[in-house]
Amino acid sequence: MRLAIVGTGAVGASVAELAAEYGHTVTALADSRSAVTDAAGIDVESALARKRDEGRVGSGDPEDALNGAYDCLVEATPTTLGDARPAYDHVRAAFERDRDVVLANKGPVAERYADVRALERESEGRLRFEATVGGAMPVLSTIEDCGPAHVTGIRGVLNGTANFVLSRMAVEGLDYEHVLAEAQDLGVAEADPSFDVEGTDAALKCVIVANVLARGEREYTLADADVEGIVDVSSNALRLASGDGRTVRLIGEVVDGSVRVAPRTVPTNSPLAVSGTENVVQIGTTDAGRLNVSGRGTGGPETASAVLADVRRLESTARD
Amino acid sequence: MRLAIVGTGAVGASVAELAAEYGHTVTALADSRSAVTDAAGIDVESALARKRDEGRVGSGDPEDALNGAYDCLVEATPTTLGDARPAYDHVRAAFERDRDVVLANKGPVAERYADVRALERESEGRLRFEATVGGAMPVLSTIEDCGPAHVTGIRGVLNGTANFVLSRMAVEGLDYEHVLAEAQDLGVAEADPSFDVEGTDAALKCVIVANVLARGEREYTLADADVEGIVDVSSNALRLASGDGRTVRLIGEVVDGSVRVAPRTVPTNSPLAVSGTENVVQIGTTDAGRLNVSGRGTGGPETASAVLADVRRLESTARD
Repeated sequence: MRLAIVGTGAVGASVAELAAEYGHTVTALADSRSAVTDAAGIDVESALARKRDEGRVGSGDPEDALNGAYDCLVEATPTTLGDARPAYDHVRAAFERDRDVVLANKGPVAERYADVRALERESEGRLRFEATVGGAMPVLSTIEDCGPAHVTGIRGVLNGTANFVLSRMAVEGLDYEHVLAEAQDLGVAEADPSFDVEGTDAALKCVIVANVLARGEREYTLADADVEGIVDVSSNALRLASGDGRTVRLIGEVVDGSVRVAPRTVPTNSPLAVSGTENVVQIGTTDAGRLNVSGRGTGGPETASAVLADVRRLESTARD
Repeated sequence: MRLAIVGTGAVGASVAELAAEYGHTVTALADSRSAVTDAAGIDVESALARKRDEGRVGSGDPEDALNGAYDCLVEATPTTLGDARPAYDHVRAAFERDRDVVLANKGPVAERYADVRALERESEGRLRFEATVGGAMPVLSTIEDCGPAHVTGIRGVLNGTANFVLSRMAVEGLDYEHVLAEAQDLGVAEADPSFDVEGTDAALKCVIVANVLARGEREYTLADADVEGIVDVSSNALRLASGDGRTVRLIGEVVDGSVRVAPRTVPTNSPLAVSGTENVVQIGTTDAGRLNVSGRGTGGPETASAVLADVRRLESTARD
């Protein structure tokens, strides 16, 4: 497939770099200020070098990327809440031209799910968004293969930064501020870590799953999630839990139509007690019991591989 | 899709019972001696009741199932080695009529992979076989979504009976014969448990994965696997391992083109140290690190859900 990639952060850049290895051609690459397009395939290396040196990927207008020749839009701009712009506008532009859309950006499917599905219905294009939930872990594809009607809910660790902090607090017996600073030094936490440590990122992923499981019967947004982060988890709480053979993890769940994110105690040998930045999701099913998937929840190449798996699925799936 | 189901053991019966819930129609059901067919959909409940009461599902010949009206063959007869008959013949019959094939039977893809792929190439029909590796766990679909070229190997616990015995030995401190007898009482081990405890079942699953990863460059059969079962694992060995914070599990792996099954020590908190009849597979990838999937590796409804996921994927995938 010919890919138009919008967004040149870690994910967009990785998709551009890996596309050829996965059998695809990048025909457009855009950042917020510019774009480079070539219907025969752009020079990805040069474009990313120009981005590093000059701060822009090309000399064209960003809109050139959406107006040129491509089969599938890869939307990898930073997630925005509320109206989910500009990602929502990019999705609409692609669907208006009957192009397929693969999202790494959570905004459109967490905050405007019904709108996006309506755009998809009116288009020949198809939407996929594996990369929005759990990076490389096959969460949405597993739900899709079971059939959403046969999935009773999910429960899991969906934010690597928060999990790193909690698992380090448990192992080192250090307090939250200390471990957060360590995480920031390692690049595991951002300078402004609130999106991760307040539980917002995990909540958005759960909201997306809730939308998929609801199958159109109701629409969820971030406002529907009951969210508590890890900011108030003390090293004392972890010590107490440890005395009972338990530890604390930031657990996101979609159960009985509710979306909740909160620190919870779990047995230390629970599949949920993952370490470091690892993520894990338990998927409850009607006929197959509980399926667990775990792996790296974030990272440029990791998330890019989920994007490219979606592109592969689109390639092999018949249009209606 | 219209399903012709051959085999009325736990898996075939479960597929027949669940088909309608998953949106499919059973137009044929056959055991080794008989068949019931109806192009508009058979009465599954009656057929399975007749099987229980009279030992046969219907009054027709078994071949009727393959000659009637259907879109997809579900092959769920007991796995046979070597020439993989009669399953191989059923697969050929379906492909000769350009029908799709979903295997729960391991024989054709473990022992005659190249032959089966050749039949598929000459047919309009497509082959899928998720249920042959790890029951309900999404192993082959995850490998497919990554792209086999991007999977470096697998490692895991792929036989529930052997894992149950070892994990019970570890927990109870009892010896192998004692725990095996307990497993047989519980129905977790067969009267003749050799297929499971000698590692053959786990090896067949690894051989199937090795065939998928080889992408036609070489063909594996059971003879290519280096297999050691759990028959000689002593409670003493488990005690020794436990002193080091380790335990023993029957581990199957496909690494660097080799297929091996053997008891190995693993850390007690390793993702591989699953309990009871649970299975787990670690999938190594080039770009996404290690993905882990775990869940129930066996069972009628569990395996049937993998079969039905394959049918779903065939329904949505374009024929070339």
